Amino acid sequence: MDRQRRKILELGLGGIGLIGGAIACSPIISNRNNENNQPTPKKIVIPPMSLNEAAQTRIKTSGLDPIAALREFDYGKVSQENGRTVREFELTAKSKTVKLNASTDFITWNVNDRVPGPTLRATEGDHVRIAFSNQAGHAHSLHFHGEHASEMDGVKPIRNGAATIYEFEAKPYGVHLYHCHVAPVARHIGKGLYGMFIVDPPTPRPPADELVLIMGGYDIDGDGRNEMYAFNGLPHFYMQQPIAVQQNQLLRLYVLNMIEFDPAATFHVHANIFQVYRTGRGMTPTEETDVITMGTAERHILELQYRFTGKYMFHPHQDAIAEAGCMGLFNVVA
Amino acid sequence: MDRQRRKILELGLGGIGLIGGAIACSPIISNRNNENNQPTPKKIVIPPMSLNEAAQTRIKTSGLDPIAALREFDYGKVSQENGRTVREFELTAKSKTVKLNASTDFITWNVNDRVPGPTLRATEGDHVRIAFSNQAGHAHSLHFHGEHASEMDGVKPIRNGAATIYEFEAKPYGVHLYHCHVAPVARHIGKGLYGMFIVDPPTPRPPADELVLIMGGYDIDGDGRNEMYAFNGLPHFYMQQPIAVQQNQLLRLYVLNMIEFDPAATFHVHANIFQVYRTGRGMTPTEETDVITMGTAERHILELQYRFTGKYMFHPHQDAIAEAGCMGLFNVVA
Amino acid sequence: MDRQRRKILELGLGGIGLIGGAIACSPIISNRNNENNQPTPKKIVIPPMSLNEAAQTRIKTSGLDPIAALREFDYGKVSQENGRTVREFELTAKSKTVKLNASTDFITWNVNDRVPGPTLRATEGDHVRIAFSNQAGHAHSLHFHGEHASEMDGVKPIRNGAATIYEFEAKPYGVHLYHCHVAPVARHIGKGLYGMFIVDPPTPRPPADELVLIMGGYDIDGDGRNEMYAFNGLPHFYMQQPIAVQQNQLLRLYVLNMIEFDPAATFHVHANIFQVYRTGRGMTPTEETDVITMGTAERHILELQYRFTGKYMFHPHQDAIAEAGCMGLFNVVA
Repeated sequence: MDRQRRKILELGLGGIGLIGGAIACSPIISNRNNENNQPTPKKIVIPPMSLNEAAQTRIKTSGLDPIAALREFDYGKVSQENGRTVREFELTAKSKTVKLNASTDFITWNVNDRVPGPTLRATEGDHVRIAFSNQAGHAHSLHFHGEHASEMDGVKPIRNGAATIYEFEAKPYGVHLYHCHVAPVARHIGKGLYGMFIVDPPTPRPPADELVLIMGGYDIDGDGRNEMYAFNGLPHFYMQQPIAVQQNQLLRLYVLNMIEFDPAATFHVHANIFQVYRTGRGMTPTEETDVITMGTAERHILELQYRFTGKYMFHPHQDAIAEAGCMGLFNVVA
Repeated sequence: MDRQRRKILELGLGGIGLIGGAIACSPIISNRNNENNQPTPKKIVIPPMSLNEAAQTRIKTSGLDPIAALREFDYGKVSQENGRTVREFELTAKSKTVKLNASTDFITWNVNDRVPGPTLRATEGDHVRIAFSNQAGHAHSLHFHGEHASEMDGVKPIRNGAATIYEFEAKPYGVHLYHCHVAPVARHIGKGLYGMFIVDPPTPRPPADELVLIMGGYDIDGDGRNEMYAFNGLPHFYMQQPIAVQQNQLLRLYVLNMIEFDPAATFHVHANIFQVYRTGRGMTPTEETDVITMGTAERHILELQYRFTGKYMFHPHQDAIAEAGCMGLFNVVA
Repeated sequence: MDRQRRKILELGLGGIGLIGGAIACSPIISNRNNENNQPTPKKIVIPPMSLNEAAQTRIKTSGLDPIAALREFDYGKVSQENGRTVREFELTAKSKTVKLNASTDFITWNVNDRVPGPTLRATEGDHVRIAFSNQAGHAHSLHFHGEHASEMDGVKPIRNGAATIYEFEAKPYGVHLYHCHVAPVARHIGKGLYGMFIVDPPTPRPPADELVLIMGGYDIDGDGRNEMYAFNGLPHFYMQQPIAVQQNQLLRLYVLNMIEFDPAATFHVHANIFQVYRTGRGMTPTEETDVITMGTAERHILELQYRFTGKYMFHPHQDAIAEAGCMGLFNVVA
């Protein structure tokens, strides 16, 4: 492993594409990937989602792609070392100006030019190797939630132009996250340097249509308060382009609250009740509700099914946050 | 049912009083209602509560009645259709200036001239029919929590002078809520257009003295922050007029946090511990505490008994919220 | 008991030291106390913590001692009355100027010249007698969480120079707190007049290294917002002086959020997952996570073990709160 690590560093972190991450899904119409050792869901239908013109234009011009963020999972480049599954991910800190709406440009700090960064996914017990390169202009780092050794904790700043490798066993199973831990952390997260890290349990969860929904805030004017909010990076996007989901089919939401400056936000779905797996720990739900309070960095698995077709909102019930961009629609189809 | 619906609309929504809601309790000394198909509690004692002069004056002059809000349940007008219990409620959006204290008038948007609106109550599986009429001067709607079809979700604005009917099966059992969902929602809720909706489980909960406590905030000056707060509409009212409850008798609190602009508030009782039924789901408690954090639109059933007589405060433990009006007293009598 | 109470009052509340509390541990290197009837942990190793010079200087000059606050438990002066264990504590409200950092002095209101006040500890069913004396210059009181009679609720202001006795049965077991309940309460808590009150279950919890971590906020300029934060009183202290803990040994954290003005804060540990005993109720955990949301006055027992040596941060994940002083390090030693 040490040899492998040295080799990667010598190669200048993926300069020859050795460890390029395997993106699981196409950017527009996504389906859960069956390659690369991940559990194989059966018979789950992802309704085709033809993007309307407004949504297409926005994805092209904004620099952000909430469709890709929704159902794409990066399972890494998979290999076996000493009888163990190894997943290698290549993550690069970048800086990029995005268009949050027609009149608001915002300079993000991000991973792989995405806000949120790619959703990494492994199975409990896998060895995870993150090749992190900083090309963002400032010092950054990647701090992962989950268990690992002190040296792999990602609190040490990596200067611009430098690189490092984080590696650890993926454990425990659950919904975790990664983010920059360079001070001021609230600023580095607020600028967009975060993503989700899912560790699947050894025995896979039942098949479901799985969606990632990350709540984020944008402090446009740097006053320590958010003026805009979004699910998966782009304010109001899923209101313009509702998320097509199948009637009477299990929907598994991986929800993360990455909003800084506001101490907590709820997640609420309309016209339905979800079952809660707190932090994705446990295989049986501990709670049923339609409003769950989540402090910054809280994340849960929420499961539900829609019995009726039609359009249904989801949003934090701090309605000022919702109406500043953090709201969306499910479009339940027959 | 469609015929019935059309008939109601033709009649101009209760113009002849066809579907007037049945208020369960007298406005001053209340007891749980035994009419109308709801579960029958036994042997529960509601101590007589003779209002002191200050409280009487305040109810007369403020335009708000926290005594009515506390133990009154509206079970609707009950009938049978195709072997199923139907509950019809008549709810009207109104606007009304209330006197929050001696020097503060506030223009509310409300339901049936009450803040909070009436507490609606049904049993899981009942068919609920809400005749909603808007006479408030602005566009409003009623969005219910709980399961229902998209068309019944109440996100479509109903213009002033118009009416509509929402209908759905009452499910799942639990503590739910309704509120206006016209943008800006935080403003419409902050102005008072909300209420509680209780769905009782098929097997009734054990007899108890049942109280509704809804935390609300008032943004008097429209700056997006609350200057005053209240339980059941009127700041500090239950400090002036403590709520009489019986010693060693099960107290069941239906608590809802309807405070916008502050992301969360706790609910705390003095000198005691309560058992928590989150969102009123489940028949066994999952937690015991005396401080529970509730984001906006969270609601729970909290059960407790007082062993000792005397006066005990309850309030959010964000003490600035408490001291700006959201606090009260239980007066435990032998 | 009444006689005993009168006697204490006549003596002017401990003027002859009759009821001086028994501090369980030495101020620097602490170990769980085996005297005074409390459960006896076995084989737990508290790594020696030699304070670095910066930490020593800060404790000397600041007027606050986060090392004492961390592992010291005050079990009171123990006696038997009518076959029951009685614990007497002597608590005095004081005022004291502390140095939060090199350039910031702050006038605290506190208990026994400490912020937080001493951590009181009893076993469920013990009789607790608190001799409270106010020498702080303003009216104050001590309100305890947990069950007790109305007269013992501590909401009545005790004027400067006066004294009172609060007494009650310690119940139910769990993590509780005490604080001044004189209005404005947010101000009295924000000034430092609070502490933890642990009630151990009749059957002791398994042996563990037990730590108290209380999150507090300081509103330096009196604008109703906190400018600084701390664990156990002194901003950033455990960053300067990491808390030594043993590898692969059960760590039991008693965590309390005493931050006013911010509605909620999360508690987060790096590189690990903890098991949650909400409010310290129950002997089996109900949840596992690394981020838990806590409204003001919420408190929990969190249990974890570190598998790897090294330094690990802990802090609220509202990172602006962390970076304004509410963060620390565990130093896990072999």
